[in-house]
Amino acid sequence: MAKPKKQPRPKAETPKGFRDYFGADVTERAAMLNAIAGVYHRYGFDALESSAVETVEALGKFLPDVDRPNEGVFAWQDEDEKWLALRYDLTAPLARVYAQHRNDLPTPYRRYAMGPVWRNEKPGPGRFRQFYQCDADTVGTASMAADAEICAMLADALEEVGIPRGDYVVRVNNRKVLEGVLDRIGLAKTKIQANPKDLDATVSDAYDVAIRNAVMRTIDKFDKVGESGVRELLTTGREDASGAFIDGVGLSDAQADPVLVFLTSKGESTAETLANLRAAVGTSERGIEGVKELEEITTLLEAQGYGPDRIVIDPSVVRGLGYYTGPVFEAELTFEILDEKGRPRQFGSVAGGGRYDDLVARFTGQQVPAVGVSIGVDRLLAALREKGRIGGEAQGPVVVTVMDRDRMADYQAMVGELRQAGIRAEVYLGNPKNFGNQMKYADRRSSPVAIIEGGDEKARGVVQIKDLILGAQIAESATLEEWKERPSQYEVPRDQLVEKVRDILTGQS
Amino acid sequence: MAKPKKQPRPKAETPKGFRDYFGADVTERAAMLNAIAGVYHRYGFDALESSAVETVEALGKFLPDVDRPNEGVFAWQDEDEKWLALRYDLTAPLARVYAQHRNDLPTPYRRYAMGPVWRNEKPGPGRFRQFYQCDADTVGTASMAADAEICAMLADALEEVGIPRGDYVVRVNNRKVLEGVLDRIGLAKTKIQANPKDLDATVSDAYDVAIRNAVMRTIDKFDKVGESGVRELLTTGREDASGAFIDGVGLSDAQADPVLVFLTSKGESTAETLANLRAAVGTSERGIEGVKELEEITTLLEAQGYGPDRIVIDPSVVRGLGYYTGPVFEAELTFEILDEKGRPRQFGSVAGGGRYDDLVARFTGQQVPAVGVSIGVDRLLAALREKGRIGGEAQGPVVVTVMDRDRMADYQAMVGELRQAGIRAEVYLGNPKNFGNQMKYADRRSSPVAIIEGGDEKARGVVQIKDLILGAQIAESATLEEWKERPSQYEVPRDQLVEKVRDILTGQS
Repeated sequence: MAKPKKQPRPKAETPKGFRDYFGADVTERAAMLNAIAGVYHRYGFDALESSAVETVEALGKFLPDVDRPNEGVFAWQDEDEKWLALRYDLTAPLARVYAQHRNDLPTPYRRYAMGPVWRNEKPGPGRFRQFYQCDADTVGTASMAADAEICAMLADALEEVGIPRGDYVVRVNNRKVLEGVLDRIGLAKTKIQANPKDLDATVSDAYDVAIRNAVMRTIDKFDKVGESGVRELLTTGREDASGAFIDGVGLSDAQADPVLVFLTSKGESTAETLANLRAAVGTSERGIEGVKELEEITTLLEAQGYGPDRIVIDPSVVRGLGYYTGPVFEAELTFEILDEKGRPRQFGSVAGGGRYDDLVARFTGQQVPAVGVSIGVDRLLAALREKGRIGGEAQGPVVVTVMDRDRMADYQAMVGELRQAGIRAEVYLGNPKNFGNQMKYADRRSSPVAIIEGGDEKARGVVQIKDLILGAQIAESATLEEWKERPSQYEVPRDQLVEKVRDILTGQS
Repeated sequence: MAKPKKQPRPKAETPKGFRDYFGADVTERAAMLNAIAGVYHRYGFDALESSAVETVEALGKFLPDVDRPNEGVFAWQDEDEKWLALRYDLTAPLARVYAQHRNDLPTPYRRYAMGPVWRNEKPGPGRFRQFYQCDADTVGTASMAADAEICAMLADALEEVGIPRGDYVVRVNNRKVLEGVLDRIGLAKTKIQANPKDLDATVSDAYDVAIRNAVMRTIDKFDKVGESGVRELLTTGREDASGAFIDGVGLSDAQADPVLVFLTSKGESTAETLANLRAAVGTSERGIEGVKELEEITTLLEAQGYGPDRIVIDPSVVRGLGYYTGPVFEAELTFEILDEKGRPRQFGSVAGGGRYDDLVARFTGQQVPAVGVSIGVDRLLAALREKGRIGGEAQGPVVVTVMDRDRMADYQAMVGELRQAGIRAEVYLGNPKNFGNQMKYADRRSSPVAIIEGGDEKARGVVQIKDLILGAQIAESATLEEWKERPSQYEVPRDQLVEKVRDILTGQS
């Protein structure tokens, strides 16, 4: 029998771009997602947990035409040579689930999903290869009521987790309006589908697509460079703050005009905004349809009492993903935080979504209209921390110290009683010899209270109860007099242990 | 520009061995895990969520010495040629986390973890390649108080999720006791470590290991074949029910005796069981230590009021995993269910664990004592379903039907009011033309109530409210008289909508 080769010790490391989450980071996220799930449930959405692993084929986007198709995803081959991968979002799996189970699912199908997704991308500060998403989608209806409902649900979810009304706004736009504007200036998208076999047309359309994309990217800069800046970038180009010259997209002024009308269309009231948008799209049928859809969404939301203080039509919303085909929306937190350099800025976007009608067709050949929203879990958690809603002093357990190793049963009985009363409690289970170590341990555990019962206390039928939080406050700031007047350690009869601990905890909370 | 090659349609399928979870299957599991987490928290355990992806090196067991080390795990190479894999349990990642973060963690470190794990194994009925685990472990203490605490916590967790006292028992054994028995009959484990370089010894020890394992497997059959059956199997062999002869392990009767004393040592009281075990281990030091540890656990548990009705010393617990080094335990549900053939049998094991002292040493070279428990999430969920604790009629949403497509805003206002009142509600968003389809949809959604407001109702300021559950009951069994007497549809003024719906829902629940 060959002797096993001695292996070097493995490194205790997470893989690059991955991390572990401890304590409150886990429970606060779970509590937030639970609260959101409650809102989604009330709106009639059902939970779905699809498998973390999908065939690369079903995920799409990343096809096995190269040796290792793991660009962007973590992928491997199974025993049948099939490529499998970890899901990179929750929408691609939804399309697969709906196509697979459509005969057993209600139509329309409202579902929510929450869980980790994985991206095989270069990690960076705050960018990890595994992170949470939280999505809600309605599949199988083209009704604008579905879009309106998701916007209302998003507003409710934000309030439910602790973002007060006034500190957020859901901004709604419609891809069709922008498309209408582009139609009007001769950059219609449909040209490509019109002449798929005409090589010349393909070349010219590829050029159009490049221009369209350039126009979209420019629109996204409106916040930064303003109206005149966008006009320059759309036409002949612009010198930026550093003096570098940025080439223009090359539109004529006549072409740039409707784009700028569109960008500056947000009025004092929703009615005014809609009127401006109608002017921007001119006679474009698609554009007119888009404005009508926004009107419908507004009417439906107003019927439920969601006014522009919560959900507002805002033409500046673009959203990156190419697959949106109608209404798009974004939830923005409007309160200010300080950036790295200490300057105030708005917290910004925490959720977004829109209507996409092409995802299920990949599987079935039939277009299935759908609309959905995705909440940025880590962003929203960070916002709740900013607002002081979570991340206060995490309450550690009451620590029962061990003064006499042979009386462990007595100490266990104490924690048993405390837990029965619903109080988080534990016995110190390290080496009890050095009492200082026990106090250090209680400190590391953020314990509010420590219990001490030495032989003397045992004989007299009492316990010592140390209020560690008060003790820390006194140690920090008290004068000698205060120290004497405000004891942070109490001796109580053993049978009043639970009562006294509860008093201390209640007084502190 | 080359035209893109037309791709065939992807198949809408989960990969082999994976599945999707819908609705109540997701929320009931989440609620159960949440309840368990509450108990663990009360015991001072902190949440940990490690990354789903680990280096194969850190996971251990599966080392990159072959081209594709994906035996048992899903593994792939990253851009630095490092092998990564999905975790196959929550214990291996805990060892890595503790070794990596030990300077920042309290000692001892109590943590719980819940989440999916992945196994690259042949799938079968009810066996999937992704499933949930729910673990709690205490790392860094050899104190038996840690083992006792985990047993008590396990009992509390079972009661918390809805297994009544009397329907479960946590059975505790100690590996050292069995080792002591084996020591005594000349099958000591330490021999291997004693002579690692002595080739002859290695051969003879390999033989001993094979016998030890055979003895262990035989002990596991005690439930099935009884005392005399085990004696036959340990010595000369046995004819089974089908008439086939099973070879014996080849022990002498003198060797088999202590094993049988051990197996039949469970007495009327814990004191009696411990006395029998003391007799079984004879003078084996390890065995004596094992019995003492069980005694200590018993004392600690009794101090907290956990008697043998909840946690009992039971020498028949063996547990498969090789890495346990001390106390082992198993939670068994004792109520009866019917098996596939309709025969009553006990529900059986839903959780298990024990003490393992070698896992962290792989990384650091230092032995770190640890003890933990793992709850079989799917098994426990199945048990709760058996007990009727979950999986009753899932309450669907109230469905507001659409009688007039142009009055969608009215219908949205209704669901808005219902949700405000905390009632789950949705508007029908499919094609409203066929009213029958709307009723079929409500049925598929398990809706308790449907709301109808046509033009006539609108004009009269009323709505129709259909009690769908009562309606279904009546349709199934009522006579014509009852049908007339117990209407399942009510007309109420529009402003009493919420009130009436609430009455119906309350009356039903």
